[in-house]
Amino acid sequence: MRRTVFFISDSTGVTAETIGHSILAQFDGIDFDAHRLPFVDDPEKAAAAALRIKTAYAKSGEKPIVVNTMADQALCNVVASSGALMIDLFAPFMGQLEQELGTKRSGAVNRSHGLIDTSRYDRRIDATNYALTHDDGMSTKFDDADVILVGVSRSGKTPTCLYMALQYGVKAANYPLTDDDLEAEQLPSFLREQRSRLFALNIDAERLAQIRSERRPNSRYASLEQARWELGRAQHMFLAHHIPQINTTHLSIEEIASRILSHLGLERDMF
Amino acid sequence: MRRTVFFISDSTGVTAETIGHSILAQFDGIDFDAHRLPFVDDPEKAAAAALRIKTAYAKSGEKPIVVNTMADQALCNVVASSGALMIDLFAPFMGQLEQELGTKRSGAVNRSHGLIDTSRYDRRIDATNYALTHDDGMSTKFDDADVILVGVSRSGKTPTCLYMALQYGVKAANYPLTDDDLEAEQLPSFLREQRSRLFALNIDAERLAQIRSERRPNSRYASLEQARWELGRAQHMFLAHHIPQINTTHLSIEEIASRILSHLGLERDMF
Repeated sequence: MRRTVFFISDSTGVTAETIGHSILAQFDGIDFDAHRLPFVDDPEKAAAAALRIKTAYAKSGEKPIVVNTMADQALCNVVASSGALMIDLFAPFMGQLEQELGTKRSGAVNRSHGLIDTSRYDRRIDATNYALTHDDGMSTKFDDADVILVGVSRSGKTPTCLYMALQYGVKAANYPLTDDDLEAEQLPSFLREQRSRLFALNIDAERLAQIRSERRPNSRYASLEQARWELGRAQHMFLAHHIPQINTTHLSIEEIASRILSHLGLERDMF
Repeated sequence: MRRTVFFISDSTGVTAETIGHSILAQFDGIDFDAHRLPFVDDPEKAAAAALRIKTAYAKSGEKPIVVNTMADQALCNVVASSGALMIDLFAPFMGQLEQELGTKRSGAVNRSHGLIDTSRYDRRIDATNYALTHDDGMSTKFDDADVILVGVSRSGKTPTCLYMALQYGVKAANYPLTDDDLEAEQLPSFLREQRSRLFALNIDAERLAQIRSERRPNSRYASLEQARWELGRAQHMFLAHHIPQINTTHLSIEEIASRILSHLGLERDMF
């Protein structure tokens, strides 16, 4: 079964998409054909969006689903005239919140015209630069790091560090355990000094070999034996030094990052 | 005025946080003290969360706000017993959707135990590696690029590319216009060949000088004159080659990325 869904917003549409995805993912066996309609912030754009939705309705014969975060009620009405099932993400909560907070909400349409918090932006950019210059053992000066990820090559360190930087403004460094480290089963001294900020990434050997194979097929590096040997040695080191760890095999980047920040009590850049 | 808000989830809490932020940002003049409570997926964790919320209530005397994406109704009830104002993000829509789709939703708690789409994960990792190896003009082989950002140094190219890769699995390269390019007002031939995939980042001269000053204070590079000269030359080149552009001065990384993808018709990795 297939359904068309539109994520519509007066801003980027990221919120509509994120929560719309979470809601629709709870319905098994339905294939959603998803479209994003961002920056719908005037009557003309709303009319164009309604036309597009109406056309999809006529073509499929099935009522499209519209996940909506537009703040302006007049624009919502234009889109609703398409006959779609409207999921208005904000509407159900506004009355309750206005009453509890004792204030009316402001016209939220303005948010799409770029009132951003420059210091938050700067912090995220700084953190991204930090992640880039402290990636893959490039620098081992970790004094400014909020967290240092350790693990074998291709265990997910780099994307996790970049995600934590871009999303949360957290300064995340990473260090890949080298053959020498693993051979000696010895954590380098510049890591031992930072133990409270270390976090280890673990991964299943089969998955690691698969990931490495896409990079260097049929190499010793990509073999299951090598993966098992490295992961076993790394595991000993993590346990010996009581480094908290997470197995990344079945987790998304968001989940890995979220678990690490939660464990380390790093809650940044939320407001 | 200050209010405590908790984002509670049986998974990462990213969804609760994203939409909770969008909702609360519509209330001006209130300072939210925000806490994330992720991975609340059993009765014990729910009880611990309820206790924490209750304690915040007793301490401040003001009803805390709980933005909730837990799927299990029993766990929601435990948390609601704290007396907080519950904003259940999924609940209002489930009845409507179940009726329209003709199916009951599945128990969504399982999602937190890592049923991820490996091919989507791989695509995001590939795209991240691509962004890292095609950053800052490091490689000018752009055949595999979905999009190539051009602009002067520090206009926001790198974080935007990384964000598009991590969030959408889009292969984004970037090229910083060099002094030679600007002096000659000539777009390098390897860019001219790719014109349909080029996107230019523009920025106000004052903001550019400010960003550069944090990096190299009192340098010629960071001067307002230099920023103006570079931006003027770059502008001529973008206009001459009809390259679409966006001014990043007042935009968040999400907004820049979203506008570029929307313009280029790149809608990736949504489902």
